[in-house]
Amino acid sequence: MNLGVVTSGGDSPGMNAAVRAVVRQGVALDARMIGFRQGFQGIIDVDLRELDAQSVSGILDRGGTWLGSGRCPQFTSEQGVRKAIDTLHSLEIEGLVVIGGDGSLKGAHALNRQGLRAVVVPATIDNDIYGTEATIGYDTCLNTILDAVSRIRDTASAHDRLFVLEVMGRDSGELALNSALAGGAEVVAIPETGPPWDVVREMIEHGHQRGKLHILIIVAEGSLSADEMAQYVSRNFPGREVRRSVLGHIQRGGRPSARDCIIASRMGARAVTALVQGGSDVMVGLQGEELVLVSLAEAISRKKEIDLSLLDLVANLAR
Amino acid sequence: MNLGVVTSGGDSPGMNAAVRAVVRQGVALDARMIGFRQGFQGIIDVDLRELDAQSVSGILDRGGTWLGSGRCPQFTSEQGVRKAIDTLHSLEIEGLVVIGGDGSLKGAHALNRQGLRAVVVPATIDNDIYGTEATIGYDTCLNTILDAVSRIRDTASAHDRLFVLEVMGRDSGELALNSALAGGAEVVAIPETGPPWDVVREMIEHGHQRGKLHILIIVAEGSLSADEMAQYVSRNFPGREVRRSVLGHIQRGGRPSARDCIIASRMGARAVTALVQGGSDVMVGLQGEELVLVSLAEAISRKKEIDLSLLDLVANLAR
Amino acid sequence: MNLGVVTSGGDSPGMNAAVRAVVRQGVALDARMIGFRQGFQGIIDVDLRELDAQSVSGILDRGGTWLGSGRCPQFTSEQGVRKAIDTLHSLEIEGLVVIGGDGSLKGAHALNRQGLRAVVVPATIDNDIYGTEATIGYDTCLNTILDAVSRIRDTASAHDRLFVLEVMGRDSGELALNSALAGGAEVVAIPETGPPWDVVREMIEHGHQRGKLHILIIVAEGSLSADEMAQYVSRNFPGREVRRSVLGHIQRGGRPSARDCIIASRMGARAVTALVQGGSDVMVGLQGEELVLVSLAEAISRKKEIDLSLLDLVANLAR
Amino acid sequence: MNLGVVTSGGDSPGMNAAVRAVVRQGVALDARMIGFRQGFQGIIDVDLRELDAQSVSGILDRGGTWLGSGRCPQFTSEQGVRKAIDTLHSLEIEGLVVIGGDGSLKGAHALNRQGLRAVVVPATIDNDIYGTEATIGYDTCLNTILDAVSRIRDTASAHDRLFVLEVMGRDSGELALNSALAGGAEVVAIPETGPPWDVVREMIEHGHQRGKLHILIIVAEGSLSADEMAQYVSRNFPGREVRRSVLGHIQRGGRPSARDCIIASRMGARAVTALVQGGSDVMVGLQGEELVLVSLAEAISRKKEIDLSLLDLVANLAR
Repeated sequence: MNLGVVTSGGDSPGMNAAVRAVVRQGVALDARMIGFRQGFQGIIDVDLRELDAQSVSGILDRGGTWLGSGRCPQFTSEQGVRKAIDTLHSLEIEGLVVIGGDGSLKGAHALNRQGLRAVVVPATIDNDIYGTEATIGYDTCLNTILDAVSRIRDTASAHDRLFVLEVMGRDSGELALNSALAGGAEVVAIPETGPPWDVVREMIEHGHQRGKLHILIIVAEGSLSADEMAQYVSRNFPGREVRRSVLGHIQRGGRPSARDCIIASRMGARAVTALVQGGSDVMVGLQGEELVLVSLAEAISRKKEIDLSLLDLVANLAR
Repeated sequence: MNLGVVTSGGDSPGMNAAVRAVVRQGVALDARMIGFRQGFQGIIDVDLRELDAQSVSGILDRGGTWLGSGRCPQFTSEQGVRKAIDTLHSLEIEGLVVIGGDGSLKGAHALNRQGLRAVVVPATIDNDIYGTEATIGYDTCLNTILDAVSRIRDTASAHDRLFVLEVMGRDSGELALNSALAGGAEVVAIPETGPPWDVVREMIEHGHQRGKLHILIIVAEGSLSADEMAQYVSRNFPGREVRRSVLGHIQRGGRPSARDCIIASRMGARAVTALVQGGSDVMVGLQGEELVLVSLAEAISRKKEIDLSLLDLVANLAR
Repeated sequence: MNLGVVTSGGDSPGMNAAVRAVVRQGVALDARMIGFRQGFQGIIDVDLRELDAQSVSGILDRGGTWLGSGRCPQFTSEQGVRKAIDTLHSLEIEGLVVIGGDGSLKGAHALNRQGLRAVVVPATIDNDIYGTEATIGYDTCLNTILDAVSRIRDTASAHDRLFVLEVMGRDSGELALNSALAGGAEVVAIPETGPPWDVVREMIEHGHQRGKLHILIIVAEGSLSADEMAQYVSRNFPGREVRRSVLGHIQRGGRPSARDCIIASRMGARAVTALVQGGSDVMVGLQGEELVLVSLAEAISRKKEIDLSLLDLVANLAR
Repeated sequence: MNLGVVTSGGDSPGMNAAVRAVVRQGVALDARMIGFRQGFQGIIDVDLRELDAQSVSGILDRGGTWLGSGRCPQFTSEQGVRKAIDTLHSLEIEGLVVIGGDGSLKGAHALNRQGLRAVVVPATIDNDIYGTEATIGYDTCLNTILDAVSRIRDTASAHDRLFVLEVMGRDSGELALNSALAGGAEVVAIPETGPPWDVVREMIEHGHQRGKLHILIIVAEGSLSADEMAQYVSRNFPGREVRRSVLGHIQRGGRPSARDCIIASRMGARAVTALVQGGSDVMVGLQGEELVLVSLAEAISRKKEIDLSLLDLVANLAR
């Protein structure tokens, strides 16, 4: 049985651990494993490499993705998908593991609808996929942000400063909200709600009363930019010194955390087992401690909800 | 309303984050908060301190426990528990949050049976408490072990060596099994099963065939010691160079991981809310993404099961 | 003998280790130690605290500065300095240890000229002080940048991208140059030379030939901004995808590295010993493995030279 | 011109950075570069690989040594050295860079005496080589120890415990002494002096007085073992709870620190330049900020002195 594996879309830490698990579990189940380079584009371009157990040695703890990745505009057209299917058929590949985020789900679903069995392993730092409590890379990214928060708090408290830290999250506040909770930020702004002007105001005024002068505000990029938040503060509290920091691309990299290595290893192996057992058109999801198979149609069409009660918790713990 | 908080038993990273959440959530709910020092002993000895929001500033990311902790042999007798109850009553403390592991559950349960409402926040690196998927400190400890595994692998692969790494886990293989999965160890020995002599043998013989000469064996202290494992290898494979490392106490310390900070903050706050709402004799547990309240009687009497299928996964991924 | 200690200017990791060493060495030499808060401003405002050995417990590995810091515009006028001298005299303080960078040297020198003995411990992430091979905080900052470089390289190599990373260094290329060397950057831009347009051009063109598609360019903020560099690349290589990252304030924070803890401890103790022995108007410098005393006049008036031959080394090693 | 490179003896973090620098500087100077595997044994066994610039991509930040290493007993005999010389001559290799510690110096010196030009890059975590202020790997190892110290202090202070931490250093107290200084240990035992019984005694008795109950004692393995120190304490202070930790092999691994990457890059390149310029029988040393060439005969015959005044500093700062 020939199986393919591809990483697609933005990279996230733990993708390599997932690739390793896919390949070695495949080998354990007597499959022949083919890796495609640079995302779906590598399927269209027939840019591939046969992978045995040894070829994935030493990649478990590496950030990024060893197979390469990228967006593939061609793949949004039926023609592009068809071309990929042709390649996969000509290589006698019976199933494909797609490791990635939102775009990967859609691409894999398109392949399935045209008759190629594909199973998704959810990997994105955003943790915004319906049907799974965790995506590969999210935990590492949270720790990266927490490390930055800790550094910024050092210098903020030395100078009694107000800091605005912008983190990733175009449509989802998961990273911002949970890093605010983990790092003890005073305020957090997320795309799911309006800008928290009241909380900002209260924290600054309240902080003066209780002698807590340094304040950390975390904003998700999809909510408002660090610049916008800084301008608001400067305009309303003219004397207040404000510093901004945009965390940027360092959030995508780094050695994967233990949790990301574990779920990547478990999910990668589960995806291969699902394909070998005839599965198709599903994503591997984590629910509690169990892995489940979620239909791609459902995972694509529904939006993961964020726990907004955590906003109150952040405020309560910041006093 | 007066509420107490205490950390008990072995310390674990994130205990301070839990104490901070307990205190600040208590303050948010208009409770007066009292911290006891050095575990249950501090209740018996009336070694306490009133805690306001500011007193827990700067402890969120500190390892260990700021309140101090310790085993308290007196507390296993009814007399000891009675003495603690007397103290708590005389201080007009209506409820107590106990942060700790197995012994804390038993101590809190004893207090409840004698009429003092106590709620437990599970904190132990072992993750061996029934009714919660995660305990505070477990995730940090896994990352600490993973860091050690990564360092050992560096030097092991430089010299084609066989390494035996002993990690914590007297009765539970959770840490050993999951760190083996995260770190790509070739063999793991856990208390829940017999020593994996066959796997060791196969890995060493198999490794020679496929040119993989360095091998990492992780043993949980409750399974067999690094010495015992090393002796087995030396006896059966006389030419094989073996090195041992006992990770020891560094597993308990360190800055808490993002996940530990988050669950500590959520669980600590939830415990206080439960007390304020009249709750008693329960532990806060994590199930999926939800916090639940688990009866202490159940949490004490039942044993958390470990997922033994992960043993096969470790073997499959080690090839 | 009464001695004072103050941290001044921008904070840097290891300042607390220096404060601890100053206080404890002072206590060991039977001095009474006074700490001033928020930099020179704290002297003018008589914002102080007596410090014994125990008061500096637990600060050794904390980033930032526990005493607080800040710029003090008043201190650039003779009147401000005179006011500080008056405070110090009225407190019967015979000598002052000033921990900080460029501004601290000038402030301390001003105090000395007006008769108050002051000794400087050089602490700044920039490592731009004449007379010492290392300043406190520089080594930690280099490691922080290296960590960011490593994360960015993960994602850059996954996508064959060109990254521009802007690091601190208004007047000095020390951080940029040495982090480029440590992190294997392909190009580095420093204030000491013109923009390296030729090298950029060659790396991009040369990279295509040898199949090395991801390129990392580090720019010191004092040379040109990440934006300017990115614009140059986009203008000259229109097809090339460019990403920018401004590392910002996280460079100032973090747990001090071993080397920073060591030099902070040694320098802090040496400064106190110098004061007790009657020294004045000097800075403690590191030359090789030895601590030396450098006259403040010399340290202020001369510019530390950077080793420009390292530019060639970066280029040679980037091929 | 053909040049060889080999890593020899115990591995240390940064060896790969040195290999990368050797190869790329060699390529930059138009040399053909040959890497030997598994230390001097690889020369004798003609186990080699031609290395171009691309072959050392991605190794800069990897711990261990990619070329492999090992002790080579054969190399202590003249016959072994002759055999290596024959191999090198038959491959028309004109010069060899040897990266390693004490044994590497002796091996390289033997080669030079028999007519093969060899230059050493000092790499060992022990920092015990005469003629250089730093060896590659020492700084990383210090940081690894400091991280362990920080974790142990967390749990020690939670329980008011006395901890004994055993670190590497068979003949040299450099690691123990400097990590004690960096980590604020109360006592340190090094091979250069007798066991510090008086200091231990005083710290324990003095600690009780001033309320500092947790004590950290660092012992170099060449001084006395953690067991021996723990027994001394238990025998003389029967009530005192003592814990031991032997740090072991994790001290050799890990991602190299910024400083180690920098000196490895500089030293590696310098060694190649020395060979190309006709140099022989020297080691590259770091003195202050300069690289110097030190005769191997001198580096081998003289012992690096340790700064014993740091013992007093550790004691002064521990109060």
